[in-house]
Amino acid sequence: MAATKRAPAGAAVLRGDITAAIRNAVMHELAEVGYGRLSIEAVARRAGVGKTAVYRRWSNKLEMVLEIVSGVAERSVPMPDTGSFATDLQLTMFIVSKALQHRIASQIIPDLMAEAARNPKIAETLNKALRTHQTALSEKIVGQAIERGELPKGTDPELAVDLMLGPLYWRLAVLRTPVDDDYLEKVAASVMTSLGATPPAS
Amino acid sequence: MAATKRAPAGAAVLRGDITAAIRNAVMHELAEVGYGRLSIEAVARRAGVGKTAVYRRWSNKLEMVLEIVSGVAERSVPMPDTGSFATDLQLTMFIVSKALQHRIASQIIPDLMAEAARNPKIAETLNKALRTHQTALSEKIVGQAIERGELPKGTDPELAVDLMLGPLYWRLAVLRTPVDDDYLEKVAASVMTSLGATPPAS
Repeated sequence: MAATKRAPAGAAVLRGDITAAIRNAVMHELAEVGYGRLSIEAVARRAGVGKTAVYRRWSNKLEMVLEIVSGVAERSVPMPDTGSFATDLQLTMFIVSKALQHRIASQIIPDLMAEAARNPKIAETLNKALRTHQTALSEKIVGQAIERGELPKGTDPELAVDLMLGPLYWRLAVLRTPVDDDYLEKVAASVMTSLGATPPAS
Repeated sequence: MAATKRAPAGAAVLRGDITAAIRNAVMHELAEVGYGRLSIEAVARRAGVGKTAVYRRWSNKLEMVLEIVSGVAERSVPMPDTGSFATDLQLTMFIVSKALQHRIASQIIPDLMAEAARNPKIAETLNKALRTHQTALSEKIVGQAIERGELPKGTDPELAVDLMLGPLYWRLAVLRTPVDDDYLEKVAASVMTSLGATPPAS
């Protein structure tokens, strides 16, 4: 083997900037035309690369979309950890409301939800991404609040998350009506009340 | 005009049973293949009629789907009026949870939501149908409860409906996790608490 070769033999070196450009192109194509009409050709054209660059990374459209979407879903919702349930709750509501109002998310989410009804692999990936967030929120934010004594011991963590995210999703993604800070505060206050949370010391 | 003629001259007589068969076929085709792939030909075949029978009623696919879906949406959610907020609330939760778990609804709703992101006419129809329910629920169930003194005067009716329907929609249509009566009772109880509702006399 020539000493000038930088990559290990047999392994393809995938340039990170090209991968990033393709990921970005996939998200924009998904938002614009939807999964059903998305083509590898259009993705490659938008990313400014050849189709081979795409196929070197993913073997087909389904695999590509699943891997990219779950990657974005995992990164996209940071988990607040402020030491107070009231503040964690407000921050979560704020972050989720921004995510649901994001132009790209608001087009990609309904499209993939529709595909999920017909494609079990998409359903599984989407469900896994959603459940990961649901569990992380319920275990971390709700679980820690119970430990700190801010929420009653018998609190149902899953129900608590449904009460936080449900109204936001209903208003933003279903009714497609924008929300303001006042609305977020009202929902947060009603979650606090309905869970019997100890109000923050002021 | 001949006395034997039953229909007014110039007006086409549309047989109600054929219209019903076509409506039914459209709902099943929407559930199975989605709006994008739905064809008038497949609808006619499934309904056991000719394509002309379809075109006599609607001039194109979009018009047909919009009219049928808004018709179903208007009929499908009866508004409870039991004289008590607690009971109206429980009944609403029960009815909505059944509707969201219905096989056909659970396939058609995400599909049309996805189309809505690309088709303003579908978005408008869907939004109108949803807002009609939202307003009916907030004006009737919440409004009457405020009048009867079961809810505080300052209750925000729209927020109240978001708190009722949001968690159900999130769990059933987004997470696609079934709910039982126990869950419905917990959500209803948390809505009662967060709105400061007077508990029912028992």
